[in-house]
Amino acid sequence: MKVGIVMGSISDKPIGEKVIDILKKFDVDYEIRVISAHRTPDIAVDFAKNAESNNIEVIIAIAGKAAHLAGVMASITPLPVIGVPAKSSTMDGLDSLLSVVQMPKGIPVATVAIEGGENGGLLAVQMLSIKYPELRKKIAAYKREIATEVIKMDEEIKSLRR
Amino acid sequence: MKVGIVMGSISDKPIGEKVIDILKKFDVDYEIRVISAHRTPDIAVDFAKNAESNNIEVIIAIAGKAAHLAGVMASITPLPVIGVPAKSSTMDGLDSLLSVVQMPKGIPVATVAIEGGENGGLLAVQMLSIKYPELRKKIAAYKREIATEVIKMDEEIKSLRR
Amino acid sequence: MKVGIVMGSISDKPIGEKVIDILKKFDVDYEIRVISAHRTPDIAVDFAKNAESNNIEVIIAIAGKAAHLAGVMASITPLPVIGVPAKSSTMDGLDSLLSVVQMPKGIPVATVAIEGGENGGLLAVQMLSIKYPELRKKIAAYKREIATEVIKMDEEIKSLRR
Amino acid sequence: MKVGIVMGSISDKPIGEKVIDILKKFDVDYEIRVISAHRTPDIAVDFAKNAESNNIEVIIAIAGKAAHLAGVMASITPLPVIGVPAKSSTMDGLDSLLSVVQMPKGIPVATVAIEGGENGGLLAVQMLSIKYPELRKKIAAYKREIATEVIKMDEEIKSLRR
Amino acid sequence: MKVGIVMGSISDKPIGEKVIDILKKFDVDYEIRVISAHRTPDIAVDFAKNAESNNIEVIIAIAGKAAHLAGVMASITPLPVIGVPAKSSTMDGLDSLLSVVQMPKGIPVATVAIEGGENGGLLAVQMLSIKYPELRKKIAAYKREIATEVIKMDEEIKSLRR
Amino acid sequence: MKVGIVMGSISDKPIGEKVIDILKKFDVDYEIRVISAHRTPDIAVDFAKNAESNNIEVIIAIAGKAAHLAGVMASITPLPVIGVPAKSSTMDGLDSLLSVVQMPKGIPVATVAIEGGENGGLLAVQMLSIKYPELRKKIAAYKREIATEVIKMDEEIKSLRR
Amino acid sequence: MKVGIVMGSISDKPIGEKVIDILKKFDVDYEIRVISAHRTPDIAVDFAKNAESNNIEVIIAIAGKAAHLAGVMASITPLPVIGVPAKSSTMDGLDSLLSVVQMPKGIPVATVAIEGGENGGLLAVQMLSIKYPELRKKIAAYKREIATEVIKMDEEIKSLRR
Amino acid sequence: MKVGIVMGSISDKPIGEKVIDILKKFDVDYEIRVISAHRTPDIAVDFAKNAESNNIEVIIAIAGKAAHLAGVMASITPLPVIGVPAKSSTMDGLDSLLSVVQMPKGIPVATVAIEGGENGGLLAVQMLSIKYPELRKKIAAYKREIATEVIKMDEEIKSLRR
Repeated sequence: MKVGIVMGSISDKPIGEKVIDILKKFDVDYEIRVISAHRTPDIAVDFAKNAESNNIEVIIAIAGKAAHLAGVMASITPLPVIGVPAKSSTMDGLDSLLSVVQMPKGIPVATVAIEGGENGGLLAVQMLSIKYPELRKKIAAYKREIATEVIKMDEEIKSLRR
Repeated sequence: MKVGIVMGSISDKPIGEKVIDILKKFDVDYEIRVISAHRTPDIAVDFAKNAESNNIEVIIAIAGKAAHLAGVMASITPLPVIGVPAKSSTMDGLDSLLSVVQMPKGIPVATVAIEGGENGGLLAVQMLSIKYPELRKKIAAYKREIATEVIKMDEEIKSLRR
Repeated sequence: MKVGIVMGSISDKPIGEKVIDILKKFDVDYEIRVISAHRTPDIAVDFAKNAESNNIEVIIAIAGKAAHLAGVMASITPLPVIGVPAKSSTMDGLDSLLSVVQMPKGIPVATVAIEGGENGGLLAVQMLSIKYPELRKKIAAYKREIATEVIKMDEEIKSLRR
Repeated sequence: MKVGIVMGSISDKPIGEKVIDILKKFDVDYEIRVISAHRTPDIAVDFAKNAESNNIEVIIAIAGKAAHLAGVMASITPLPVIGVPAKSSTMDGLDSLLSVVQMPKGIPVATVAIEGGENGGLLAVQMLSIKYPELRKKIAAYKREIATEVIKMDEEIKSLRR
Repeated sequence: MKVGIVMGSISDKPIGEKVIDILKKFDVDYEIRVISAHRTPDIAVDFAKNAESNNIEVIIAIAGKAAHLAGVMASITPLPVIGVPAKSSTMDGLDSLLSVVQMPKGIPVATVAIEGGENGGLLAVQMLSIKYPELRKKIAAYKREIATEVIKMDEEIKSLRR
Repeated sequence: MKVGIVMGSISDKPIGEKVIDILKKFDVDYEIRVISAHRTPDIAVDFAKNAESNNIEVIIAIAGKAAHLAGVMASITPLPVIGVPAKSSTMDGLDSLLSVVQMPKGIPVATVAIEGGENGGLLAVQMLSIKYPELRKKIAAYKREIATEVIKMDEEIKSLRR
Repeated sequence: MKVGIVMGSISDKPIGEKVIDILKKFDVDYEIRVISAHRTPDIAVDFAKNAESNNIEVIIAIAGKAAHLAGVMASITPLPVIGVPAKSSTMDGLDSLLSVVQMPKGIPVATVAIEGGENGGLLAVQMLSIKYPELRKKIAAYKREIATEVIKMDEEIKSLRR
Repeated sequence: MKVGIVMGSISDKPIGEKVIDILKKFDVDYEIRVISAHRTPDIAVDFAKNAESNNIEVIIAIAGKAAHLAGVMASITPLPVIGVPAKSSTMDGLDSLLSVVQMPKGIPVATVAIEGGENGGLLAVQMLSIKYPELRKKIAAYKREIATEVIKMDEEIKSLRR
């Protein structure tokens, strides 16, 4: 099982790394690329066209501003495409979010929160878990893990209790 | 293969019907429910807890305003959850969109466009196609179909050509 | 008289401390917890279910982004629930505000300003003052106190007077 | 137990009526007024000053645009003040919402959803229930009632089940 | 001299007609097409690749929601690309505007007002006038014409003069 | 005493009429014009340059979208300029409001509410009242008049009182 | 001739100082106060009621968030009231702007740009110039002065000329 | 071939420099000016009136807030005008964007992304390339160049590959 991660620019690397951290945690293979919908459109099209035959089962696209990368992927491949809107220096991510999520009828992009690299990775894992039951168990474990983190915070806060 | 569709209110029915039209087209089984995250929280929790054992493989949640239904589902089930923000009488759907998409780290919701029932359904089909290869072919056919529709529109527009 | 304070994450602690400062000032007992609507949904439900029998009379929920914590509380308990939207790294708090305030018919959340910890605390005191007349007097005194602060600022500004 | 309802204009009457429907349902007494923060400021101040001695225990203020009515009330009375932002012909209620909710430190307004008359009424009832235990039971019953409505919708939707 | 007009859907026809009315007025040849960036991506790429050799000198792309059509054109062709954001049923055109205008460094789209078909056409004419001096004169005449319209309105308003 | 009213288009006439109704009520003379900052820039400049010598003491500019009319006036005349943002078919007046109010340092425009014709007129009257004391009395009377209207509404609402 | 400046908090002092710099430049007398619409409502009302008899001819109110100070002033005094929206730590000033500018029919506030202290001062001077012709000349001189500054910048930029 | 660059203030210089870098790269002559639509309106009008006879073929206007500079240019000259919205200290550039792009029918401004100096320059080059075929080749080369940059980033990212 393999996820294809595409970022519109090297500046999106911190988000890409959050995706990778999740995928590694779940032992999901990945391929990470910098591909620009606007500056390398042919490569974008090629990546999307060949994704399926390259054994990619889910694509995660990370991009900002007029963020078309996820949409370009989704327009070509039948695979599910996850979009992670990146925040740029203006508009606080609203431009990216709307460019990614407001896709027209027929071509969905599964959009997660602005800058939400972890959630992009997790959503990919959840999608893969439909086919790979071992992931389902790991997700349940992960849910317990993040619950435990919150429970620890809850202990910590005791200091604020009267 | 079965999709669970939950709507926050009967007023979301037109969006639910768009989801169903897509699922029927792809011969994907579904179960449709009206469940309110806020008015029937226990039922919401039960639905999410039992979804997996009820053979549901993807959940689609449709809700408006402070739209928590998808988030409630995603907080409980390990299944992928798709959120369709519904537009209410104020704020033009922005409240719903942000309530659905801006999920915290660890609990993704795969968000599609405001009122995007068809895309909610299609995204579910794409997720299922990871496991069920026959759907992959149907998606490719569907893509050709909507392309054909556009090509027909392109013919139509000839009347406007000089 | 006791107020239950729940925060979605330890990162909301500065807001929680502002709430506590106010409650201490008014000699109102409190219990503070970190509970996540999404990561520890069962604990959230339990907290809300048991709040009344734990002698809690008002709940204050602090959370950011797709901030469902106040809504989850309000969906379960008959107690009044105050929501304090927390600002996250994107969207300047608008996502939190809309997720907290735009609750559907039947399940109100008493929303205060973004990051408004003090006002969350004060609103709880005002609610309690319906039952506990001694608080009413303290609120009047508090109002005089903040008026005095403004009057002091007004003196200070004299240096800018011609 | 009595609630004071103030509306900025007779055009807010439909929202006021939703408040009243709820208060009647819970057998809570009320007084309803049209008072403008800007056009009848003296009356607004008098109303707020005398609210407590007039046996009012909660104030609900309904207003639109630069909606200062709730803030004026809250600046004067120690009683809890609920703000219901009304939608006007421009800005889709965002101006009202921000004018009502973004109150400065020290003077909270308990804000509910734009046009949320029912929730304004319900929040008042929840506040009163701190003192009047009979209301607590009615609220629990009301919660069951609205749950039942959702369950009915859920039955209705069966027609859409395959 | 020829302008290529592409619309994302037949529903954008009213905007396309406004473009055409302007081009006809200036005796500029055009070709109008319905091409979807997402539903017919290959045709979009082909159109952009061949535009120059088809004697098109400016491309006008009209699209709504996550409006990528202008961006796709601009990513491929060296020709100037004008984007006209179309308003859809949600978000009042803000999604379209941001998707069209917020292009990354290196790939500009010349964006005009939401639904601004006439201005899309006029901007194309202005661009062409750099090469074709006869258009420059017609633009000056057009400016006088629209000035005359305003002057006529100014006469009309006399009835409101005291 | 005379007010100059300029509208960007005949379509702003309903707002212009609201201004006039107020000016007539206060017996303030006026001149009303349709002048477009963009389509008749020379006339706009001339109007602004000659306003003072034409005995105009305040200018009211009404315009929508990228509403530059008030700014053009203010850039030229030393007279105070009032801007009334008009709502167009997109963006709900936000574009107009920001274009009118966000003027750079040195060139203020006195902005009133979106579509706020009456308030544009009243503000002009208030400005004039600095010089003409008889207007001051009329304003006081007007304030009593609108207070009386609210008081009448308050009577009306009695029917809703229990 | 005297201007009354009121600020909602000492934190608005930098904006107040910009107002004063302008007033001093034009030799306009002023009185500056810190008065909170919400924390010292009685003082606010008193200030507004007595402004006229205290020889104040224009009021400038500076406030942030749910910024009601200008509106309170305008509701009471017949004098023209200028509102300067202050930016707070959330919402980038949009809350303040809408709370100040969107005043209801009958009670205008002359709103200038967010944080626009200088423009608040200049607008007051322009209003006063209706009565005091010596100010009119100074405004014309000021316009030449700021033009000269721009012309100096224009010289500076020569270094960037090829 | 020459481009006229106008900036509303010397503070826009960093954006102007980005424009110049692009024009130099393409060997396009330019003239750069600081001209304020509001503080030096006569100079703005003169510049626009004489642009054509000064051999300017495209105008680029850079301005922020209520950014009227591009609109003033476009109202006068028949040349194509490109607008680059500059971000100011409030509203994150949204005010500038809307003031520049939402031009009324008849007077287009070719708007690029907020702070998008390079794209302003590139769009000018594309417009000029209609007349000057040598630029067309350079644009194609530039497109290859930015593609190469992305391809380099793509190599770099290998370190993140498993």
